[in-house]
Amino acid sequence: MPDTVWDLLVTGGLVLSLDKNLGTIENGAVAVAGDRIVAVGPAENFSRSGAARVLDARGGIIMPGLVNTHTHAAMTLFRGLADDLPLMTWLGDHIFPAEAKLTDETVYWGSLLACAEMIRSGTTCFCDMYLFEDAVARAAADAGIRAVVGEVLFDFPSPNYGALENGFAYTQSLISKWAGHPLITIAVEPHSPYLCAPDLFKKAAALAKRHHIPLVTHLSETRNEVDQIKEKYGKTPVQHLAELGVLSDSLVAAHCVVLTDEDMDLLKSFDVKVSHNPESNMKLASGISPVPALLERGVCLGLGTDGCASNNDLDLFSEMDTAAKLHKVNTLDPTAADAPTVLGMATGAGARVLGMKDTIGSLCPGKMADLIVVDTKKPHLTPMYVPESHLVYAARGDDVSTTVIGGRVVMEEGRLCTIDLDRVIEKITAIARDISEGR
Amino acid sequence: MPDTVWDLLVTGGLVLSLDKNLGTIENGAVAVAGDRIVAVGPAENFSRSGAARVLDARGGIIMPGLVNTHTHAAMTLFRGLADDLPLMTWLGDHIFPAEAKLTDETVYWGSLLACAEMIRSGTTCFCDMYLFEDAVARAAADAGIRAVVGEVLFDFPSPNYGALENGFAYTQSLISKWAGHPLITIAVEPHSPYLCAPDLFKKAAALAKRHHIPLVTHLSETRNEVDQIKEKYGKTPVQHLAELGVLSDSLVAAHCVVLTDEDMDLLKSFDVKVSHNPESNMKLASGISPVPALLERGVCLGLGTDGCASNNDLDLFSEMDTAAKLHKVNTLDPTAADAPTVLGMATGAGARVLGMKDTIGSLCPGKMADLIVVDTKKPHLTPMYVPESHLVYAARGDDVSTTVIGGRVVMEEGRLCTIDLDRVIEKITAIARDISEGR
Repeated sequence: MPDTVWDLLVTGGLVLSLDKNLGTIENGAVAVAGDRIVAVGPAENFSRSGAARVLDARGGIIMPGLVNTHTHAAMTLFRGLADDLPLMTWLGDHIFPAEAKLTDETVYWGSLLACAEMIRSGTTCFCDMYLFEDAVARAAADAGIRAVVGEVLFDFPSPNYGALENGFAYTQSLISKWAGHPLITIAVEPHSPYLCAPDLFKKAAALAKRHHIPLVTHLSETRNEVDQIKEKYGKTPVQHLAELGVLSDSLVAAHCVVLTDEDMDLLKSFDVKVSHNPESNMKLASGISPVPALLERGVCLGLGTDGCASNNDLDLFSEMDTAAKLHKVNTLDPTAADAPTVLGMATGAGARVLGMKDTIGSLCPGKMADLIVVDTKKPHLTPMYVPESHLVYAARGDDVSTTVIGGRVVMEEGRLCTIDLDRVIEKITAIARDISEGR
Repeated sequence: MPDTVWDLLVTGGLVLSLDKNLGTIENGAVAVAGDRIVAVGPAENFSRSGAARVLDARGGIIMPGLVNTHTHAAMTLFRGLADDLPLMTWLGDHIFPAEAKLTDETVYWGSLLACAEMIRSGTTCFCDMYLFEDAVARAAADAGIRAVVGEVLFDFPSPNYGALENGFAYTQSLISKWAGHPLITIAVEPHSPYLCAPDLFKKAAALAKRHHIPLVTHLSETRNEVDQIKEKYGKTPVQHLAELGVLSDSLVAAHCVVLTDEDMDLLKSFDVKVSHNPESNMKLASGISPVPALLERGVCLGLGTDGCASNNDLDLFSEMDTAAKLHKVNTLDPTAADAPTVLGMATGAGARVLGMKDTIGSLCPGKMADLIVVDTKKPHLTPMYVPESHLVYAARGDDVSTTVIGGRVVMEEGRLCTIDLDRVIEKITAIARDISEGR
């Protein structure tokens, strides 16, 4: 063993690398230098004395952190504010009035709460769309979590930037401000075909292309959206975006629930990335995305939780469980959406969705050290025959004991290291009181 | 305040009594004497010095324990052994061969593990159907959890009792042995219309009636079952049981996925109790029970997890979440299966399903002290606008900090008081090794 000194050694657990060559290593270890993984192998190959810091993962699974490909982090502020309502009542009477009063500060605190919840439940990277996204980026950077963030753009005035042209200016300023940040990537984010005119989409796509950054939108979420777009443009939403020249391999399309066969072929032929959000689609009664048919075509699919107002949590473990079960019952095929596939959606495929396939999504030398330890010494994870099965069908966010992002330990043994949770809860409680009282 | 001394006072939390008259009490308390609740009210009405033991529930919700109306507890032994397979491959190649080797002892340990998981996740009562049920009853009694247990009866030889007549004798012996036990109720449990001849059902129903105990069966779980019964008897499974005189208000029918309108009317007219198991029905691709239509008819519906081989956990919190979302997307109605209704299915309605409506299911004086404390000082339960929303859509089993059953504290601050978890995990690991190796 050379006299290499690692900054961090996570050792003694079952390493589920999700890397084709490295596979699964019982009693394995991951060595980290700076923000990157430098070695993965049997624990016996790594001397503890060669590391500045050692995390003992005995009785646990060491695996890549999860990737949440679609959320609205600050909507934690509205968690459980209103449920079980018709869509228009929910939006018009509850969500829109509350959103109109958001500020950069309240979005910061709501996002920081979301970061706490995501780190706590093993998510190490998320893709966000919302208002006041500079605050989301600051919260993510402060929490030490990887994020793709972009200001939502639409045809009507925004509670943040006002008129649309300011929205593009705000996005430009985000791109400049966060350029080169190790954790934050800016994206251009037109809301959806039903809230964005063709020109907005074209301008947004051009901006994203110019900066080689992702373009993020909602697409074909509901039957109602499809009917509306068909009436307006004579095309499905996917065809409409194809026509506008917006479909590309750096487009992240959230939802994709109501799709024709031709839509699916288009998504595949442009290598559009899809974020599947089963729990939100269920709770809002939007429908069930044809995931097995998309997978069969080879469309790249990640998982997303959507915002807390329509889920109502950010736990990707329960999202995996739901995804795996939902497509079985929807197709009446118990072999659909099997555990390894769904686990892939929350890790490697999720990384690919966000344009990060070479940097995150598996544990192998050269990739960012974004990893988690799942404690399996629990009644509901006993016995263990197949780790992938437990991660999808039995584990919950709370089973994550340790979270590392870019080599930094952001949670250790269930204790958040970068966030003062008591202070966040105090702040959020005060903001929520104002929201309840309509202030 | 008279000089009453309570055995236990759980105080300082939000009391969600789920009792019509008592409602919700902020900063409330529940006083317990022996195995029963004697008072519920504002915390200020209760002097801590009046209680032999005080549990502080500050920052938590004090609520009735959850009722799991259908499971096969010992199937924890097969958790994740085989997933994502066609039903017949799964049963024939994995589950049946493993079940053939079960013994009274392995069922005891598997059931004790299940009890640990259920207590840990806030379930205080479960209804079980399996083999070697005396072992299940002993495990439940040792763990201090309330249970309805009954030996599964079917037309072919059992790995436990051999020929069917011995199954009835075994059931009789369970009835005698456990008569008067404060936690254990014995039921008569014919497996299903497709595995039990008409005579078996009639004899089982007569036995249950004679002893005033529940009759438990699987009913109309899959399209295949319905087709089979129709071909054999010219009737749907529900009509078939109606014809046999088996439908009654003490029949607990698990699943009820594939139902005609006439079936639903029959279930209602006989006040048959239905155990809804959405996660198992999804994972096995059985179908989606028409829950909103059953609720509309006033059928009494409880929730069940089914066994761990088809779920793969016993967490009723995630089962509530799934139930509430599944029926929304299935009916494309976001108001279907609202949070209070689903919470009721896991508590009061579940109690009624098991014939215990007067003894458990809500917090009010005279009922058994079966209660839990849910710790809401967590990122994913912040902020809190509506407690019922959090319990259904955001809480998980791990959020339960304290569990009390029949006045006995069986878990305190996440620590199991009646079960040596390390020993259980050790035993299960050894049993699972034998199962893996086909021994």
